[in-house]
Amino acid sequence: MPTNGSPYRLGAALLESLAQEMSALAEQASALLRTPPESLSLDADISTQIVRRNVPRWHFAMLNDTERNEALVAALERGIPAGATVLDIGSGSGLLAMAAARAGASRVFTCEMNPLLAEVARNVVDAHGLTDVITVISKPSTALDAGRDLGGPVDVLVSEIVDCGLIGEGLLPSVRHAREHLLAPDGIMLPSAARLYGKLVNSEAVLKLNQVTTVSGFDVSLMNTLATRSHFPVRLDTWPHRFLSEAAPVLGFDLARDALEPGERSLEFLATADGEAQALVVWFELDMGNGIVLSNPLDNPRSHWMPGWVPLEKPVLTKAGETASLRLRWSDFTLRVSL
Amino acid sequence: MPTNGSPYRLGAALLESLAQEMSALAEQASALLRTPPESLSLDADISTQIVRRNVPRWHFAMLNDTERNEALVAALERGIPAGATVLDIGSGSGLLAMAAARAGASRVFTCEMNPLLAEVARNVVDAHGLTDVITVISKPSTALDAGRDLGGPVDVLVSEIVDCGLIGEGLLPSVRHAREHLLAPDGIMLPSAARLYGKLVNSEAVLKLNQVTTVSGFDVSLMNTLATRSHFPVRLDTWPHRFLSEAAPVLGFDLARDALEPGERSLEFLATADGEAQALVVWFELDMGNGIVLSNPLDNPRSHWMPGWVPLEKPVLTKAGETASLRLRWSDFTLRVSL
Repeated sequence: MPTNGSPYRLGAALLESLAQEMSALAEQASALLRTPPESLSLDADISTQIVRRNVPRWHFAMLNDTERNEALVAALERGIPAGATVLDIGSGSGLLAMAAARAGASRVFTCEMNPLLAEVARNVVDAHGLTDVITVISKPSTALDAGRDLGGPVDVLVSEIVDCGLIGEGLLPSVRHAREHLLAPDGIMLPSAARLYGKLVNSEAVLKLNQVTTVSGFDVSLMNTLATRSHFPVRLDTWPHRFLSEAAPVLGFDLARDALEPGERSLEFLATADGEAQALVVWFELDMGNGIVLSNPLDNPRSHWMPGWVPLEKPVLTKAGETASLRLRWSDFTLRVSL
Repeated sequence: MPTNGSPYRLGAALLESLAQEMSALAEQASALLRTPPESLSLDADISTQIVRRNVPRWHFAMLNDTERNEALVAALERGIPAGATVLDIGSGSGLLAMAAARAGASRVFTCEMNPLLAEVARNVVDAHGLTDVITVISKPSTALDAGRDLGGPVDVLVSEIVDCGLIGEGLLPSVRHAREHLLAPDGIMLPSAARLYGKLVNSEAVLKLNQVTTVSGFDVSLMNTLATRSHFPVRLDTWPHRFLSEAAPVLGFDLARDALEPGERSLEFLATADGEAQALVVWFELDMGNGIVLSNPLDNPRSHWMPGWVPLEKPVLTKAGETASLRLRWSDFTLRVSL
């Protein structure tokens, strides 16, 4: 903590936090093991707690995002050669794996790191009579071995694992690993390219979801040390806000050829108004091949992805007509923007 | 899972999920211990991951909820006798503990189960020069011992630990324990009573945040086994919706005298329209003494609490003018509503 707290106290608090989480998990595991299997159901409190922590509710909004589903299904239908083998990273409900099978794949492997989702996907695939074509593997893609798990490298890699900030679900490390170890040379990648765009924005309302100063006469701004520093989703259209710049590219990856490593770059935004920018609002585009682009543009509030809010480390004053320069650092999962 | 899955497979998936979480935590602990203290900061990726999982972002919206803060501060100013000793459950930033000290308490103990928040609260209290009056204890209230931790039972218990569904943060078990073990006989409780109200509602838009049927020709409704079954917060005013009944009481507790145990009861709602109710929308009232009531009514979309959406286990058809009867079961943390 910036005031008073030594790094030792910070380290201790972080470790204590982890220890507390571990002990809560151990308690749940023990409660689970004491439950007779015949009385175990997803309705039990213990089950609902585990599900709620591990299966985010956005899966439902995503499955109900018709525009997304139609674009992805069309991309699979046009992009998968007849008889091809496919690896789909992130099974979820099994939807894309089933769409790949329907599109003509001879064999579809789909991996899901969450064991509960993997179990549901298995049951969904089974209910559709597709177990001969589709294999659900309960592992993260980075734990897959092409020879052991996939019967050799696959022809097509499907990786719709993007969040509102493009890389937050691990697109970069997953694709880095998959294209080297799981995909045949010159295999097809869906998406094949991914881009992130942004605009400077001012919104006191959204700022107050992640920052505080003085409350009832007490300065509690030390709380800001616990604010979210990377991007998070926000339904921007439901909060008062003002854009302060033109849109500009933030990140861009050729998924087949670029290094896909963490890095940094400078960003330039042409200001359209005088003001104080508190964040970069971002949206992405995925090239799904055959002219199909999957995106969550700001003018589509129906997209389940929502725009991403990337807090600026410090606010930036904009002047209409002038260019604001920022610095972007990205890791395998996070985006950070500073002056 | 309802189809195919045996309880053994469900149990295995739940255990596998816990094992995965534990191993991720162990990895983080190990990474943390390998980090030299002098290079450890809240800016490090490892820190931000731990913070993000353990300190929900709603703390900021809450601290910026002026109406809430003013009501609570007024309640402490009017409700704490000069020179009283106070226990505040859930320190957060330390705000209420500081307000209690300013209101005239001679000694304030405040406990916080999250070690990172406890560390921030300690630093905030220190920055205000209040360490002589306020002690921040990094424990859940149920782990406190009056003699050892508080120098004996306290005169006033402050427990603003309510979520959109009133009991989701453990109000019942916390107060049950505190009034028996931590509060002096005839001690003052703030709040002293808590009530939950509800209305039947129809909203396809909100329903789709937690339920799915058929997508692109595939029936993926088995996903609904992983839907949220208890209440969750929803910014109802930002989604199309239609109320189908009058408001009616859902739960009510005299925190000093009632058992505060899990239970069940029947609910009756006078329908105001024909329709299909998918949920109960709920809001609470807390009696803070001296005529001060803290609430998150449906007509106040500025409240950081938001209304609570309690899914009905099955939809209910309403007929204007007729009464719809439902069954509520509540546990220490959850609300479930069935026919």
